[in-house]
Formats: sequence, C-alpha cells, structure tokens
Amino acid sequence: MKLLHETLSKIKPSNKEAIKRAWGVIDNLSKPIGSLGMLEEISAKMAGIRGELKYEKYKKNIIIMCSDNGVVEEGISTCPQNITQIVMENFTKGSTGVCALAKKEETEITIVDVGVNGDFNNKKIINKKIAYGTNNITKGPAMTRDHAIKAIEIGIETVNKLTKDGYNMFGTGEMGVGNTTTSAAILSALLEIDVEKAVGKGSGLTDEQLENKKSVVKRALEVNLPEKDDIIDVISKVGGFDIAAICGCFLGAAENGLPIVIDGLISSVAALCAYELNSNVKDYIFPSHLSAEPGMTFVMERMGIEPMLNLKMRLGEGSGCPIAFNIIETSLYTINNMASFNEAGINKDFYVDIRHIQKNKI
Amino acid sequence: MKLLHETLSKIKPSNKEAIKRAWGVIDNLSKPIGSLGMLEEISAKMAGIRGELKYEKYKKNIIIMCSDNGVVEEGISTCPQNITQIVMENFTKGSTGVCALAKKEETEITIVDVGVNGDFNNKKIINKKIAYGTNNITKGPAMTRDHAIKAIEIGIETVNKLTKDGYNMFGTGEMGVGNTTTSAAILSALLEIDVEKAVGKGSGLTDEQLENKKSVVKRALEVNLPEKDDIIDVISKVGGFDIAAICGCFLGAAENGLPIVIDGLISSVAALCAYELNSNVKDYIFPSHLSAEPGMTFVMERMGIEPMLNLKMRLGEGSGCPIAFNIIETSLYTINNMASFNEAGINKDFYVDIRHIQKNKI
Repeated sequence: MKLLHETLSKIKPSNKEAIKRAWGVIDNLSKPIGSLGMLEEISAKMAGIRGELKYEKYKKNIIIMCSDNGVVEEGISTCPQNITQIVMENFTKGSTGVCALAKKEETEITIVDVGVNGDFNNKKIINKKIAYGTNNITKGPAMTRDHAIKAIEIGIETVNKLTKDGYNMFGTGEMGVGNTTTSAAILSALLEIDVEKAVGKGSGLTDEQLENKKSVVKRALEVNLPEKDDIIDVISKVGGFDIAAICGCFLGAAENGLPIVIDGLISSVAALCAYELNSNVKDYIFPSHLSAEPGMTFVMERMGIEPMLNLKMRLGEGSGCPIAFNIIETSLYTINNMASFNEAGINKDFYVDIRHIQKNKI
Repeated sequence: MKLLHETLSKIKPSNKEAIKRAWGVIDNLSKPIGSLGMLEEISAKMAGIRGELKYEKYKKNIIIMCSDNGVVEEGISTCPQNITQIVMENFTKGSTGVCALAKKEETEITIVDVGVNGDFNNKKIINKKIAYGTNNITKGPAMTRDHAIKAIEIGIETVNKLTKDGYNMFGTGEMGVGNTTTSAAILSALLEIDVEKAVGKGSGLTDEQLENKKSVVKRALEVNLPEKDDIIDVISKVGGFDIAAICGCFLGAAENGLPIVIDGLISSVAALCAYELNSNVKDYIFPSHLSAEPGMTFVMERMGIEPMLNLKMRLGEGSGCPIAFNIIETSLYTINNMASFNEAGINKDFYVDIRHIQKNKI
C-alpha cells in the first residue's frame, strides 16, 4: 500500500519545456512542416520523457506478467488453464512469438509469475506468486483489495529493479488463459461500455463461445458491481493479477521517468487503469499496434492516443512492443540526422503548417 | 517500347505452391492461429516471391525518381520549382528524411533524374533526363506517349541494373514539386474518382490554395480527356516522368521476382498504373504506411492491399519504405524462429481458426 501511494505521489508530468524545445528543432528540419507525422510526435514525446531530443540505443525489456484466472471454469477460452504454464516455460526457452520478435530487436524479456495456478522449477521465471490463480468472477470478486494492491506493487517493484539494472525502455506483455475476459470486464466497468462491444474472440472462439463469453462478463459485472471511480475496486472485483501487475509497470515506468509501450488489449486495459490512477502516466506511454480485439479502441479513445502499427495482431505476450521500440528509436535517429532548413538551403516559408488538419495522437 | 513489352510479358504470378507450404509452416507455429496478423501474411507473400520461407538480411535500395512538372505554373504548390533540385542535392549529402531513415535501416538510395528542369554536376545523381520537366497539363498533355514509355523503361532499367548489383529488396520514392497534383489527376482518371476526394494538401496548402489545386486537376482532365483503359494514355496526358518511372520500377521488380515497397500517394499511384498494366505485379508489392494524403486509400482499395503502418506521414522521398523493410525482415525472422505446436507441447486443436472474421490484406 505504501509503495503504491508513494509511487502515485511521485509521478510527475514529463518535461514540457523539453518538448517545446524539441518542436523548435523538429519544425526547423528541412521538410514540409509536420510531414514526418507521428515520427515527429514520438520524438517530441521522448524529449519530454528524457529531457532532451537525443538518439540513443535503448536498453529494452519486455515485462511479461503471468497469472491464472478462476473464470476459466465458465468455458470462456478454448485453451485449458495449464497452457499458461506451458507457454511460460516456452518463454524461458526463447521459442514463442514475443521471444523471436524481441531477439530481432535486441530486447530482453522478464517473466514474472504473479499468480499462476501451478509451481515452476525454472530460474528464469521470477516467483512473485500471490495465489494459485484468482477466483471465478461470476461468483464473487477475483481477489481481495489487498491482493490487487500487492499485484500492482509487484509491477512497480519489477520496473524499479530493472531500472536499477540499467534498462531504460519497457514493454508490457502477459500470459494468462482467460485474460481477455477479465480485460473486457474491467473495460466495461471503467468506461461504462456495453459488454457486447467490449468482448472479442480472444485467442479464438466460435460465435457460440463468444456469446457465452459475453454473458459471463455481464454476470461478473452484475454479481460484483464494481465501483467505476475506484480503480482498485474494479481491478480486484473483475480483473486479474496480470492486469494489476502491468498497471504497476506503467506506474513504475512513469515514476522512473522512462518510456513504456502498450501491446494489445490486456496491457492497454492495464494502461487505462494506471492512467485513471494518475493521468500523468500518459506522458510516458506509447501504444504500439491496434489489436484485432475490439475493446482496445475504447482505451485509445479514452487516453487520446493512437497506435503506430496496423498489423491486426492478437497474440499478446508483449509481441507488439519490439517493432514499436524500433519505430521509437528510428524516429529519434531520423530527427537527429536531418539537416535544418538553413543547412539545406530551403526557405521555411515555402511550407504552410497544416498540422491543424491532422490529428496525430501518440 | 520493346523493353516495356518484354517486361510485361515476363511478369509471372508469385509461387503459389511456396505460399501454400509457407502457410503450412505458419499455421503450425505455437500461437493462436492467425494471431500474428499481417506479420503472417507478409511472410507468406515473401515465400511466394522468394520460393521459400526463409529469413535473410536483404540488400535494400530505395529508388528515388525525380522530375519536374509544368503544372506548377498554376500555383498548385507553395514551393518554387527549384526545390526539386535543392532536395536532390541534399539527397546526395545524406541530409533529408529518407536519407536518415534509410541509414538507420541499412538501406541504400538511388537518385535518378528522369526529367528535372535543370542540370546537375553531381555524380551521385543518375542522369536519365527525358526533358526539362513536363508540359502544363491544364493546357495539353504532360508528355508524348513515347516519352511516357521511355520513362517507364527507365524505371525497369534501373531495377534491372540494381538487381545485377545484388540488391534484392526495393523501395520507391520521388521528388518533384507538383507531383501530388499529377498523382491526383491520374487517380481520378484511372479509378473515376471525384476530384474533390482525390486531391489533398500535399506538402502544405491553405484551404484557398487547395480549391485552386482541385480546379487545376479538373481542368487537366477536361482538356486532356485521358482514356482510362489505356494506362499509357493516362500517364502521358496528366502524369509525370517520376510516376511513369516508378511504375517501371514496380514492373521491373516483379519481372525480377523481387519485393518492392510503396511509400505514399505518388508511388501508390505508380503502383496502381503497374497493376493495371499487369495485375501479377501485386504479388511483389508491399504497401508501407497510409499517407496523410487522402487519395491513397482508393489505391489500396482497388489493389486489395492494406498498409502496415499508421504514421500519418506525408513527406514522400520514399520515407515510408525503411520502416516497412524492417517489418518485412522482422516478420520472416519471427516466423523462422518460433517453435511448432509439437515442439512447444501444445495441442493445436485448442485454437479455433477465426481468420475468416479478419481481413488482412497485404
């Protein structure tokens, strides 16, 4: 509780003076004003986070929060629960989607057990287990309020530790059979969105199974009556340990003044929770791709951000982060390696600033 | 004429057997089926082009076709015509947007003068000048039919030469003040799209200037009456040397069986011309980002492809290609470095194939 409160009180907006200085540089580069689109916004946002508009090769780490969800009893996933454990073991072997993507972009991964329903004998999995999975949210709250706070604090601690180890750019990932169900439940509760619109097919459901999933989320909300203005209440009643811990990662990155990337639906819902706890975290958060899961659009709208990638991915694991890392670094590299109007021998006045007709949100 | 005809007759569909084999591999990787979204389509398409599903570090080159447009007399750009030459000189100094982006992704650039209104004393600019700019399309055809064919053949020759030099992945770029106007004119003519919808603000126009640009495109179409089913007629009447030459690049890449990437509006219109000349070229073409220029959406719809990036860029120069190169390579790397269901100890039957609800077009 203490760590969460301290962290929330320490999260500051990013450096708006540095952002202003960055735009001064960006708008003086030899190109039609605003023509590099979101690459410009990304660089300016990074300048705000880092205090200067500088290219560097970041030390990148994707934190994969893993836990199980009692709601799988309701048949909301085609996968048996032990897939959570199997995929986690595969993370440690480097053989899953996020592992390959991360390796290509020179990114490390960190695997945390926040509440998986099983034990591991694997040194590559960090044991922060709170419980052997959550309770079935159609029958009562997923976890106690204390456990929700503990899970968030695990996320904060993980980022604090990795920051000490020298990592300075983070990605968020997850593994937990059933976690698109809990994400949809949080989303419906927090943003008062119709369950019909928030629930998607996750890792693959038939139309009939999708109807069941919707009815499960509706029941979870009716049984628990989460209080939308009390984020911890919502997470503890209809969420999961993984979402809570990722929420903590966003808070931790913001407190440490470091950039952190959203993957798909689950981490976007965790980002939303962090944002509702302290809206300054938005200054440190970059979306990556728009998940094929329908709910993510609502999060983007609420936070006023927009993904840079349109890859229709829905794997999870943090798999959207590595390509986004590359784009962030490429953006900074580009802005730092172009000539100014003066150097290029071009009169800036030729270009009309038409950015008011564009809405780039990053 | 001979080269164009020969090239068109030699363009074959990509290897559909290799694509089928690739899907066999991709659908057997340990992930929900289809969950890597467009990364899967990209790899499968590359397998069709290359004959196998293999990761390699490509030797990449962005071909920047440069030319001037007589229509600038009509005030359709805020830039004076000599900006074409100034930016080209800056390409050779490595100081523009595409230069920085290309360097970050280990990509070379090739600068070709197909018809710039001025002379160069610069060995880094390949002299293929057809004329000192095109004629004003509001007063008559931009160029002769022979010149249009010659410009297309310059594109084919450029790709043939670079292929001999060992390059095996291409990007398309352009520089030519006024070329969003000619692109919009071709687009309106070829797809019978309302000029109001095809014309955008290019590198930056006020609302008043935009209205003028629309009226200029309308006049160009009325004066020239391009024949929509005769692509060469359309290009020669309302196009430009740059668009024609880029069209040739797409044809050349397809003939050589190599992948080639679209940048923004102008190169997408060139891709459309190539596609209308021989629809097999589509098998070799990858879109990169959706330009902030409005017309590009129509090209994507017509060709049934969809960009992977949503960066709201409108710089041109080929600036969208480097990040797309990275995504193509990352896609192949990922698909080639994941465990199969068998290796991962996961039963494939857990996952329902829900790809029919997704429409990934690449």
